[in-house]
Amino acid sequence: SRSINLAVIPGDGIGQEVVAEGLKVLSAVLPGDVKLETEEYDFGAKRYHATGETLTEADLEQLRRHDAILLGALGDPSVPSGVLERGFLLKLRFAFDHHVNLRPSKLLPGVSTPLAGQPEIDFIVVREGTEGPYTGNGGTIRQGTEHEIATEVSVNTAYGVERVVRDAFARAQARPRKKLTLVHKNNVLTFAGHLWSNTFNKVAAEFPEVTTDYLHVDAATIFLVTQPERFDVIVTDNLFGDIITDLAAAISGGIGVAASGNINPSRAFPSMFEPVHGSAPDIAGQGKADPTATVLSVALLLRHLGYDAEADRIDAAVAADLTERAGKPARSTSEIGDALAARVAG
Amino acid sequence: SRSINLAVIPGDGIGQEVVAEGLKVLSAVLPGDVKLETEEYDFGAKRYHATGETLTEADLEQLRRHDAILLGALGDPSVPSGVLERGFLLKLRFAFDHHVNLRPSKLLPGVSTPLAGQPEIDFIVVREGTEGPYTGNGGTIRQGTEHEIATEVSVNTAYGVERVVRDAFARAQARPRKKLTLVHKNNVLTFAGHLWSNTFNKVAAEFPEVTTDYLHVDAATIFLVTQPERFDVIVTDNLFGDIITDLAAAISGGIGVAASGNINPSRAFPSMFEPVHGSAPDIAGQGKADPTATVLSVALLLRHLGYDAEADRIDAAVAADLTERAGKPARSTSEIGDALAARVAG
Ligand SMILES: CC(C)[C@H](C(=O)O)[C@@H](O)C(=O)O
Ligand SMILES: CC(C)[C@H](C(=O)O)[C@@H](O)C(=O)O
Repeated sequence: SRSINLAVIPGDGIGQEVVAEGLKVLSAVLPGDVKLETEEYDFGAKRYHATGETLTEADLEQLRRHDAILLGALGDPSVPSGVLERGFLLKLRFAFDHHVNLRPSKLLPGVSTPLAGQPEIDFIVVREGTEGPYTGNGGTIRQGTEHEIATEVSVNTAYGVERVVRDAFARAQARPRKKLTLVHKNNVLTFAGHLWSNTFNKVAAEFPEVTTDYLHVDAATIFLVTQPERFDVIVTDNLFGDIITDLAAAISGGIGVAASGNINPSRAFPSMFEPVHGSAPDIAGQGKADPTATVLSVALLLRHLGYDAEADRIDAAVAADLTERAGKPARSTSEIGDALAARVAG
Repeated sequence: SRSINLAVIPGDGIGQEVVAEGLKVLSAVLPGDVKLETEEYDFGAKRYHATGETLTEADLEQLRRHDAILLGALGDPSVPSGVLERGFLLKLRFAFDHHVNLRPSKLLPGVSTPLAGQPEIDFIVVREGTEGPYTGNGGTIRQGTEHEIATEVSVNTAYGVERVVRDAFARAQARPRKKLTLVHKNNVLTFAGHLWSNTFNKVAAEFPEVTTDYLHVDAATIFLVTQPERFDVIVTDNLFGDIITDLAAAISGGIGVAASGNINPSRAFPSMFEPVHGSAPDIAGQGKADPTATVLSVALLLRHLGYDAEADRIDAAVAADLTERAGKPARSTSEIGDALAARVAG
């Protein structure tokens, strides 16, 4: 019989609330013969204040035993900026080699967007997740003096770039439009830029059906707001991916509906799924958070584990729910979760 | 008697056409007692192909003698990516220590924007121009092999960060809303992030009237499309500034009206003014390019040289022209230039 052994990390702020709804929908969508086991972990601000720890080697050993990880959000004003980001979120991505950071953007009919004219938006961003300026390489000398120098080193390897570029080509190949856009800044960051462009062109030869395109990251932000329909699949570096996926979320229904997967396609380690939004401490505990991004992250999780039909059911339920929202009074976090659970079960 | 000794670099593609209109408007706006001398330089693709040179030490010696530089655009598909960018544009910014890269964004009534609801947009970005990931530090080993590693090093100094942060505070202080937002990614790029944040907080103490704010660069892209009215002055790093100013241009009338100044406030070297757009080889020579961004760059140039009344006249002429465009048939490059010249002279 089939089973899913899930690590659940609610985290801080609204993370707690949205994860509860994600699990509600997950339970509702799974067929009776699939056994769902969940284990909750208390990572985040509270644990950091209590123990000074963010993510230990022992924690990683425990997390490894799961099939996948569902995360709400980490972060609290009481924790200095960078501690939980570097000490947990990025540490986990690096430890489990989550090199495919997958972020779909789809604007559904009736969903509000800051863009005029309700453009067609349906693309995915494949963001590299383990290299670039995120490696923590760099340092500071003469800190706090007028002679301070601080550096950040973007590290890019042929191995790391090629595997994510190949993953993106395969995803483009599997979509109807079969178009892949490389986003970088190869006219300025020429060392990394050449590696990315050369790798992209090399792998392109293996995917003759995929149409390719290149945009500098600055130009990409322009096209995201003026011609978002030109994008099908985007592959890009860790930092550029961070920036353009927030913009992509903003134009395609907002951060409340943006899902993401931190994927290790080899399955050597469990992949991690989380909403793109943060812990939003200002609205935490009030039932105001939209759990939709978490529910869509559950769909990505199911697809990763091979439950495509169930993932499709969640996507369809969310699409129907979003389309029907317009003009109606706002619902609470759990009301939205209930509505989605009812739809996927029905 | 007063005089302006201007270096003119039309460059490639539409650069030639838009600079001609910029000079037309400049001549029209200057009072009779100001002597305008211009010297044209042939930098760009043609010269690169003819001589292999982009910008020599002798060129820099010549350029130094001018009061300011007006540039159209550089770049052509026949030149490998990065050659003119690193070999001319960035070389000039670094050689003349153009550390204040100034980019205003103002959406005028009636001007089209991809954003719904015609939001209020009126902010300036002060982008650092001589540090960050733009320094060319980094390198490649084992190039072309499966073991290639390419690095890019972002270099940030207390000296470099503090001077641009102070410049931005002074600009914020001089504006009615007096609000300054630091944009960085200090939760991930912690070495550079701490230097930027600490410097920002230190200098803030000298400007008690200025309201301060901080946004991660990814969140800033969201607010630029959902709440652009929240911005007054933004100060940021070279690369983040590159990215968000293209987005800022896109939302506030498009790249056709986005001006920029590469400024050395000490006046030890001439400052350089240019439209944010590129050389657009696809429409070059057809009279289709909008010279407005170049004309607005001329206004920034005049303001830098102390001709505030003349700069105001150009800004007003552009505002009037843009507001009257809506619904009218498109005009040619020189027709727009003629209209603006007539307005500033009248
Ligand atoms: C919280 C932060 C470390 C993270 C990132 O920069 O990757 C977030 O912005 C994201 O996009 O997942
Ligand atoms: C052409 C390129 C070097 C330049 C930059 O990245 O600074 C351009 O994009 C700009 O914004 O002026």
